[in-house]
Amino acid sequence: MRITKEQILDHNQKQSKEHNESFSFLADQLTSQNIDVEVLVNQIASFEVSIPSWALGAGGTRFGRFPIGGEPGNLEEKIEDVGLIHALNRSSGAISLHIPWDTPGDAAAINKLAEDLNITFDAVNSNTFQDQPNQEYSYKFGSLSHTDAKVRKQAIDHNIEVIKYGEALGSKALTVWLADGSVFPGQQNFRKALERTYQSLEEICNALPDDWKVLIEYKPYEPNFYSMVIPDWGTSLLLANKLGVKAKTLVDLGHHLPNTNIEQIVSILLMEGKLGGFHFNDSKYGDDDLTTGSIKPYQLFLIFNELVEGTSGKDDLEQNISWMIDASHNVKDPLEDLLQSVEAIKKSYAQALLIDRQKLSEARQSNDPVGAQECLQEAFQTDIRPLLREARIRSGAAANPIGLFRDLNVRSELINERGSDTIATGL
Amino acid sequence: MRITKEQILDHNQKQSKEHNESFSFLADQLTSQNIDVEVLVNQIASFEVSIPSWALGAGGTRFGRFPIGGEPGNLEEKIEDVGLIHALNRSSGAISLHIPWDTPGDAAAINKLAEDLNITFDAVNSNTFQDQPNQEYSYKFGSLSHTDAKVRKQAIDHNIEVIKYGEALGSKALTVWLADGSVFPGQQNFRKALERTYQSLEEICNALPDDWKVLIEYKPYEPNFYSMVIPDWGTSLLLANKLGVKAKTLVDLGHHLPNTNIEQIVSILLMEGKLGGFHFNDSKYGDDDLTTGSIKPYQLFLIFNELVEGTSGKDDLEQNISWMIDASHNVKDPLEDLLQSVEAIKKSYAQALLIDRQKLSEARQSNDPVGAQECLQEAFQTDIRPLLREARIRSGAAANPIGLFRDLNVRSELINERGSDTIATGL
Amino acid sequence: MRITKEQILDHNQKQSKEHNESFSFLADQLTSQNIDVEVLVNQIASFEVSIPSWALGAGGTRFGRFPIGGEPGNLEEKIEDVGLIHALNRSSGAISLHIPWDTPGDAAAINKLAEDLNITFDAVNSNTFQDQPNQEYSYKFGSLSHTDAKVRKQAIDHNIEVIKYGEALGSKALTVWLADGSVFPGQQNFRKALERTYQSLEEICNALPDDWKVLIEYKPYEPNFYSMVIPDWGTSLLLANKLGVKAKTLVDLGHHLPNTNIEQIVSILLMEGKLGGFHFNDSKYGDDDLTTGSIKPYQLFLIFNELVEGTSGKDDLEQNISWMIDASHNVKDPLEDLLQSVEAIKKSYAQALLIDRQKLSEARQSNDPVGAQECLQEAFQTDIRPLLREARIRSGAAANPIGLFRDLNVRSELINERGSDTIATGL
Amino acid sequence: MRITKEQILDHNQKQSKEHNESFSFLADQLTSQNIDVEVLVNQIASFEVSIPSWALGAGGTRFGRFPIGGEPGNLEEKIEDVGLIHALNRSSGAISLHIPWDTPGDAAAINKLAEDLNITFDAVNSNTFQDQPNQEYSYKFGSLSHTDAKVRKQAIDHNIEVIKYGEALGSKALTVWLADGSVFPGQQNFRKALERTYQSLEEICNALPDDWKVLIEYKPYEPNFYSMVIPDWGTSLLLANKLGVKAKTLVDLGHHLPNTNIEQIVSILLMEGKLGGFHFNDSKYGDDDLTTGSIKPYQLFLIFNELVEGTSGKDDLEQNISWMIDASHNVKDPLEDLLQSVEAIKKSYAQALLIDRQKLSEARQSNDPVGAQECLQEAFQTDIRPLLREARIRSGAAANPIGLFRDLNVRSELINERGSDTIATGL
Repeated sequence: MRITKEQILDHNQKQSKEHNESFSFLADQLTSQNIDVEVLVNQIASFEVSIPSWALGAGGTRFGRFPIGGEPGNLEEKIEDVGLIHALNRSSGAISLHIPWDTPGDAAAINKLAEDLNITFDAVNSNTFQDQPNQEYSYKFGSLSHTDAKVRKQAIDHNIEVIKYGEALGSKALTVWLADGSVFPGQQNFRKALERTYQSLEEICNALPDDWKVLIEYKPYEPNFYSMVIPDWGTSLLLANKLGVKAKTLVDLGHHLPNTNIEQIVSILLMEGKLGGFHFNDSKYGDDDLTTGSIKPYQLFLIFNELVEGTSGKDDLEQNISWMIDASHNVKDPLEDLLQSVEAIKKSYAQALLIDRQKLSEARQSNDPVGAQECLQEAFQTDIRPLLREARIRSGAAANPIGLFRDLNVRSELINERGSDTIATGL
Repeated sequence: MRITKEQILDHNQKQSKEHNESFSFLADQLTSQNIDVEVLVNQIASFEVSIPSWALGAGGTRFGRFPIGGEPGNLEEKIEDVGLIHALNRSSGAISLHIPWDTPGDAAAINKLAEDLNITFDAVNSNTFQDQPNQEYSYKFGSLSHTDAKVRKQAIDHNIEVIKYGEALGSKALTVWLADGSVFPGQQNFRKALERTYQSLEEICNALPDDWKVLIEYKPYEPNFYSMVIPDWGTSLLLANKLGVKAKTLVDLGHHLPNTNIEQIVSILLMEGKLGGFHFNDSKYGDDDLTTGSIKPYQLFLIFNELVEGTSGKDDLEQNISWMIDASHNVKDPLEDLLQSVEAIKKSYAQALLIDRQKLSEARQSNDPVGAQECLQEAFQTDIRPLLREARIRSGAAANPIGLFRDLNVRSELINERGSDTIATGL
Repeated sequence: MRITKEQILDHNQKQSKEHNESFSFLADQLTSQNIDVEVLVNQIASFEVSIPSWALGAGGTRFGRFPIGGEPGNLEEKIEDVGLIHALNRSSGAISLHIPWDTPGDAAAINKLAEDLNITFDAVNSNTFQDQPNQEYSYKFGSLSHTDAKVRKQAIDHNIEVIKYGEALGSKALTVWLADGSVFPGQQNFRKALERTYQSLEEICNALPDDWKVLIEYKPYEPNFYSMVIPDWGTSLLLANKLGVKAKTLVDLGHHLPNTNIEQIVSILLMEGKLGGFHFNDSKYGDDDLTTGSIKPYQLFLIFNELVEGTSGKDDLEQNISWMIDASHNVKDPLEDLLQSVEAIKKSYAQALLIDRQKLSEARQSNDPVGAQECLQEAFQTDIRPLLREARIRSGAAANPIGLFRDLNVRSELINERGSDTIATGL
Repeated sequence: MRITKEQILDHNQKQSKEHNESFSFLADQLTSQNIDVEVLVNQIASFEVSIPSWALGAGGTRFGRFPIGGEPGNLEEKIEDVGLIHALNRSSGAISLHIPWDTPGDAAAINKLAEDLNITFDAVNSNTFQDQPNQEYSYKFGSLSHTDAKVRKQAIDHNIEVIKYGEALGSKALTVWLADGSVFPGQQNFRKALERTYQSLEEICNALPDDWKVLIEYKPYEPNFYSMVIPDWGTSLLLANKLGVKAKTLVDLGHHLPNTNIEQIVSILLMEGKLGGFHFNDSKYGDDDLTTGSIKPYQLFLIFNELVEGTSGKDDLEQNISWMIDASHNVKDPLEDLLQSVEAIKKSYAQALLIDRQKLSEARQSNDPVGAQECLQEAFQTDIRPLLREARIRSGAAANPIGLFRDLNVRSELINERGSDTIATGL
């Protein structure tokens, strides 16, 4: 199923009067605050967030999984699903693949399909946290950190293979999420495991094309419940510094201990030139992988406040950081969930752009926390939705993506096409 | 595979000299502190902890599962595995079943097998957190709390069916762990969901035989990541009080928010006459389901301190509370893991029995926290292992259960019997 | 110092054009959604939040305290400070006193002063967590739960005395925050301490006038770091149920373990008819006592969603629940901080009133979490500030309370009047 | 008051029979496991832990403080108190001072007193989290990170002054605990604050004598409740790496977010050559500053497991890491509390020394978590107290330090000498 330009135009037409009123009122208000609305809309319009290939079907927990129906059964269908999202919001023009879940059999055909849908390929992800059929060695006790050099070799080779798949598709980054760690005190020699991990990563780095980066994810627990080899940003940065310029840290919002100040981590990584990218999602308890912005929208805004502050402008921000979602959809339609996430991310970005930086800087310099808070809240409380809608309409996207998704009965169409029993590879 | 008395005797024989020395030294020390060692050994020996049928195979996370080999492929084999554990420790003479994972086809035959192995049936568990093939309604959005009465009816009927299976096997309790809840703010009307849950539980209670109890588990999150219908002991107690004398609260050690004082909850439930039972395990982060005593052994000891203090003696403690393990074995051999857990539980119980209650009571009365701490530490630091070993030897169990398990190559034998590819139903 | 009507009018005059534009645009939008804007403004205007007498000076931590200057040196000055806040926002017409910090020497004179400033007296608070000079027994090891009956008697008598002070001022509630607990495992017999607490509270309840309620606060830790006698809502509810209709639970937003779903607690307490009141504040780590809405504004909105849903209308909500702030101002001007908090609370209330309850109810009934989230976000993202401003202007308050506070140099005036070295009693 | 050798000898004499029996039994057992008991006792005997000068009086919280009586009123009395502790346990022969709380007026006289009591001076601590009378600039909004260069200069100068005091007393390290941070989102520019902190620390480093080190503490929150400039080990390490060889990280056990794996941090810092020292204490919720080993004794053992594993032997461990307590005694007698803490620390060290490293290494290499756990538990469950007692007796300390402390009525004597109303400077 594809969504046509006509369907979009027709949908937008119906909302144009109401939209124009609210947009023009907001534009006037912002203009009177000396904000250049045209520049702002442009910034919002060009900001895109990549879709994870592993999150296009229903997600699950160790307790169960409830299929949604019409799930994409292969890589082609996954790309088509991203195409649907992108058609609706014109802000999700890239997909991040997971190997071996999405091994592209015929790269040329895949590239052709993606091109048709205006989709490019963001970071490729390796998988050494599961055993695949016919795999020689098990990752039960680790991969890049394993005590046995043969297992490490297998995991290194897999990563190098993933890079090759990525090259064929035009990717420029490899994301390494290492599930390695230990479940019980004593099980692992922390230092030796970290040293082995470093050596393995070094070999992977050596295989990395010159214009690529490797994104090193960190996570405090799960699936290992006593220790993870790369538990926090400090360890990821330690590795990235030793590995050199190609290595950067990836921040997954759900990969932190309770109460962590994530925005401060983002700011320090930016300062060190080591912020490589994001896996966006939201959470209340752990790595809950919920819709971005559904639980702590103010935290998301504060993160974007740091991002806008810590980068040197639109191009630096858009090009030097990888913007990706990592979520799991246990009860929502994955496509609706992803539309909500992208919207929440762009909303936070737009609100961060609204912050009066001069005023904020003065409040900070004069140690006026009340003033600084008012300054942030002024931006956060602004109803930014007309701006995002305007940016979408100008880009050829739908004024109301979820509304149109439902009006067009997209899920029913997908079930008709693919059946109710398909199960997408992924989490 | 079965372990014979001769194998046990032979194993114990080899350790008898060393054991006798350490036991007699400890016995002398305790006697000089006016502790009746015979009574103590008897208390330790008679204390048993039930084994969960769903934890006899390799566990897993949403990221993967690594089979152990020789896993029990049906209920009979699960009972045989518990038989192996019980033969080794004589402290695990009961199994807690999960329906429909362990639906007993032929109850008489199952009873016969269990009897042969000195195994009885502890609480039966219902399962409304997964959909079974051919199930009419889905539990995706809840079961006992579902907005649709037809789904609730199906879940109630399932629980009643579970009671019937339990009756046929001699169980005396139903454990209800309700995964119901919501993943996103707004998704659920908290009060209506709780009211519906109460009404469903009331119908289940009505179907409960007179000498049964229903154990109501609580859990703050997972698999729902915004709210659970029964998130904490307060809600479980609220329900149990409304449901009447048959309803009690079940405490799973892993089902608490960070830093919760679990021992205090145990003590208040005892005070209210509503402590129904335990699911023992250990955790560092969330519901990690690790080997009991592997992460926070002192907390386990403090829980048993409350249990000994809050019950009126050995019989009250053993008979009125259900003692069960609930764990998941991702990297350990399940049988070894369970042997470790039972040992840790009994060790904590034994140490709690050692506490000088008169001295503790005086320290409390005179507000002497230093004295109270010394009193607890005196018991906790005592090397209690000779007492547990003595209790085992007298009961016909192995001096060193894990040692004998390995000497007899039990796992290899099970793999020989059952193959490497069997996968046990469970978590 | 007092703020005159003329100063307010003059301030409002300057903002009227800009305000009228934004208000009338928002009013049109809401009207087109079938929302009765007049009713809404009325609801917002009449909602008031009480100010804690102990939070009018600079707060501190155990590491230090940095005075603000011009702090109120006695009860009269505290009431005058609340008068300033109320003059600016017309939403803080009550003060909650702490005895013995604010013991009213001459109740008639205090009443007269309060009346002049349109201030009434909300719940009175007892203090048994500190020793006062000339106090016979120390509360070092507890008060209402103390092992020694003489200490308990002293604490009970103090609470009864607090009630009498409250009666003279027209209060209708006693707030009991019990700091009792233990710092080390073993120090306290949990059950006996809770039983003694219950008996002490029963005596206090017996002394309570017929039209009063007693609000029982709970807190998991601090100042005791192992256990608190009333650690959670479950224990507070247990006590409130045993104590009868006058006893209710008070929810302090900062008194929860990490990741607690507070809005669910609020909803269950409402369901049980036991929600007595709030201590509003915000926090990232523990009982941080920060400006309400400064850290987790969405959580505050979700709490008000439950409050609007769980009460039977404006009068029920306003009259049967005590609305109070409890905060500590370490770096902000206390008056500015309190103005920000009241604004944030009213904003959340107003946004909760905007929620389309019919639509939400349908989304819940049909298990549509995407729809439910959109429904909540629709209200939360609405820029509600013109409505609050309108409600203030109509009530005779300032369009921009903090702006006027700064324009009038209120703090400098207070320092001129009272000096830089006064230190307000409180936290 | 001083404790005489005769009092110690007399006390030990009374316990010698019972001690000798238990020691010789344990020694035999360990010898049969090929452990050299003489070496072990020597290692335990020579391991010392420094006492913080600020923890010799009753501690408190922001809610109150309950004096203990007989608190040291000046530096001399503080040193005398440490002398008492050291006389009782011969394991606390150093004091860590806090300036300006303990500014030594006459360094020569202080040195003489300390020498008489066999006390040396461990790391000196600066204090820029409180304002002192007559201080020119306030630290309300920070010190080394302050936006105003004049405030930073004052804080730098203070640190340099502290170094000079330390030099006069023979200290070799400066501990910098920086309370700087922000209370509200937006208040502080994270990166600029960290850059300013780095520059300030650089100036302090430049003033550091060649044989000194500077210990950089980290803490996630309190007294700032939104962000701390040095919130975690990653930031401390970042600074230490930039500052060079003299700069190291100090680990305070209470300065971590919930569920942090502290032992892993310790191991990574050791690996990087940047573990400078410890502030020992224990906690259940936050920076509770409780008696070391009173809440999570197994975690303490696991930390020492890393320390023994990660250092190259007794001298490396003792000399290159600073071993200090940092605690607050709200309800215990400070001297008893410190005796308990030192005992718990040495017990964990001793148990870590017992671990069969060959066996552990093999279990790790072969991925046998059951074996690794058994290996750790074998050491942890050994009742090590006779070894510690033996080490004390041989060193001239008391067999039972707290017992003798109570028998000699030390606290009463101190109250007689100093009165009930003295208040020790400190926390």
